[in-house]
Amino acid sequence: MDIFEILNNRARDLEPLITGYLKEGRPENLMDAVRHYPMAGGKRMRPVVAMVVADAVGGKGKDAAPFGAALELVHNFTLVHDDLMDNDDTRRGLPAVHVKWDMPTAVLAGDALFAKAFEVLAELEVSDDKLRRLLKLTAQSVWILAEGQQLDTNYENNPNITVEDYLTMVEKKTSVLFAAAAAGGAIIGGANEKQVCDLYDYANMLGIAFQLWDDVIGLTGDESITGKPVGSDIRNGKRTAIVIKALSKGGRGHPKYDELLNVLGNQDASDEEVRRAIDILRELGGVSYATELAERYVKSAKEKLSSLPDSKHKEFLVALADFAVARSY
Amino acid sequence: MDIFEILNNRARDLEPLITGYLKEGRPENLMDAVRHYPMAGGKRMRPVVAMVVADAVGGKGKDAAPFGAALELVHNFTLVHDDLMDNDDTRRGLPAVHVKWDMPTAVLAGDALFAKAFEVLAELEVSDDKLRRLLKLTAQSVWILAEGQQLDTNYENNPNITVEDYLTMVEKKTSVLFAAAAAGGAIIGGANEKQVCDLYDYANMLGIAFQLWDDVIGLTGDESITGKPVGSDIRNGKRTAIVIKALSKGGRGHPKYDELLNVLGNQDASDEEVRRAIDILRELGGVSYATELAERYVKSAKEKLSSLPDSKHKEFLVALADFAVARSY
Repeated sequence: MDIFEILNNRARDLEPLITGYLKEGRPENLMDAVRHYPMAGGKRMRPVVAMVVADAVGGKGKDAAPFGAALELVHNFTLVHDDLMDNDDTRRGLPAVHVKWDMPTAVLAGDALFAKAFEVLAELEVSDDKLRRLLKLTAQSVWILAEGQQLDTNYENNPNITVEDYLTMVEKKTSVLFAAAAAGGAIIGGANEKQVCDLYDYANMLGIAFQLWDDVIGLTGDESITGKPVGSDIRNGKRTAIVIKALSKGGRGHPKYDELLNVLGNQDASDEEVRRAIDILRELGGVSYATELAERYVKSAKEKLSSLPDSKHKEFLVALADFAVARSY
Repeated sequence: MDIFEILNNRARDLEPLITGYLKEGRPENLMDAVRHYPMAGGKRMRPVVAMVVADAVGGKGKDAAPFGAALELVHNFTLVHDDLMDNDDTRRGLPAVHVKWDMPTAVLAGDALFAKAFEVLAELEVSDDKLRRLLKLTAQSVWILAEGQQLDTNYENNPNITVEDYLTMVEKKTSVLFAAAAAGGAIIGGANEKQVCDLYDYANMLGIAFQLWDDVIGLTGDESITGKPVGSDIRNGKRTAIVIKALSKGGRGHPKYDELLNVLGNQDASDEEVRRAIDILRELGGVSYATELAERYVKSAKEKLSSLPDSKHKEFLVALADFAVARSY
């Protein structure tokens, strides 16, 4: 199964919808900033998941497209605000909104995208009962996203974070919108309650696996393919599962432990020091631990699909889970 | 009629609702920031308007309380973000969120308040038809608020702004949530379509009158009563109706025109220079123009109440309009 062909085809169907929602508004400088990320592409993973799931439970994928597009607007709103908060300067090969414009414009453009998402939800052509569920799901997801972003900030350079803490943060910051996409797509497609819960869990675990694997290829991948400087997480002092596990294996007093700690969170660390830190993370078993953990999440995620009838849509969801830990970017 | 007694009584009924919505969440540092403005009081004007209007159209005021509280959360979210964007350091006698914490926490606390508002809306105990209308009204209002904030920024120190431009900005930035409160209260209370529109217009004009009068007392009021440094709008270069009108009366070449321009937007202007600028704004008719304009809006706003049956609730709405241009703070 070529999941890219499916991803690309579905994403192409979504473009006019997303463009349409962001067509009208003023003043023009705000609208340019509002459109900056959504119009710069992206894989549209959340709406695609919503649509495929709606198909997979026996409904019509296109009925889930507006809901999925609303989640894509929410996703883009969080990217604009997160890049500002994290001081990340580029996104999708473009300058970040707060860089191309300024802080106030980034705050406002994010707020406007958020507002538009709820306007789209208010006009969904679904039954009233479904509308209420989708609304609550989305609003609660945004609340959880904020919790996750705050935890991520609190955890930076904090030596007491456990792998469990880290996974909770990833669930809140990354998985929750995938889970909302899958559960929402299931609700729209007319799934039974067990299927809705199973699909929520599937996408939640898929999100965790994606993030764990992102952490791995961020250290071991090819910068020209990942698009992210190798070891940037190390310079930023991110306490990923890899780092937490390695530090717990090393233990205080272990010579490599101190060497690792000296580089973690050191923005001025040399490339050589970062390379050495990555070697230590491998040697102490952090990389293999995160890889195996990601693979376990993929396995569990796929098991959650057993309540779905066989179809090409189910096959796509299986393939997407496998892709989470097979990709080099 | 003692409008303060009514405002205070209604506001007291709202407190447990607002407190309840903000009770749960984590981590604690985010929750402290989320609660900072909503728990610091405020007049709760928007929810009070929604509740009184619901009563005034023959419904039950308390049925509009959760919707009103959702708008209060939206209002507080915009205050957190606006203070950050405008670099205002205090609010309700407290340090602003971005001052007490930092920029990222202010962005996130605002986002979380916004998300909570829509969670409250998703759970409103109103008919499905009303729910959709309230949702759309609120989401569109937030979009318009963002437009208004951007226009406000764009208009600073811009010499080409007309009174019409200014009023459009005020409608978007200030009136829109009052209008949503009144229209929403009317929908919940079971008003007919003409009443919903009339009440929207009433609150829209009320909001404009409030802002015009704020501009006036910001120049002519007593700092110890208004709580705002006299002439801060002048140092910030705000092109209020007062300034626009005075400049159009003065005209280029007029000696006072140039004197005024030298102080407008000059953060380092002395108190004496600001006092002199205020005198010029008076002499050129700017202050009386804005006062009369505010009074005209109040008159038109009250006329919009003619489709309501007589009641003490209608009397409150009349008194609130009169208060807009009678207050000294």
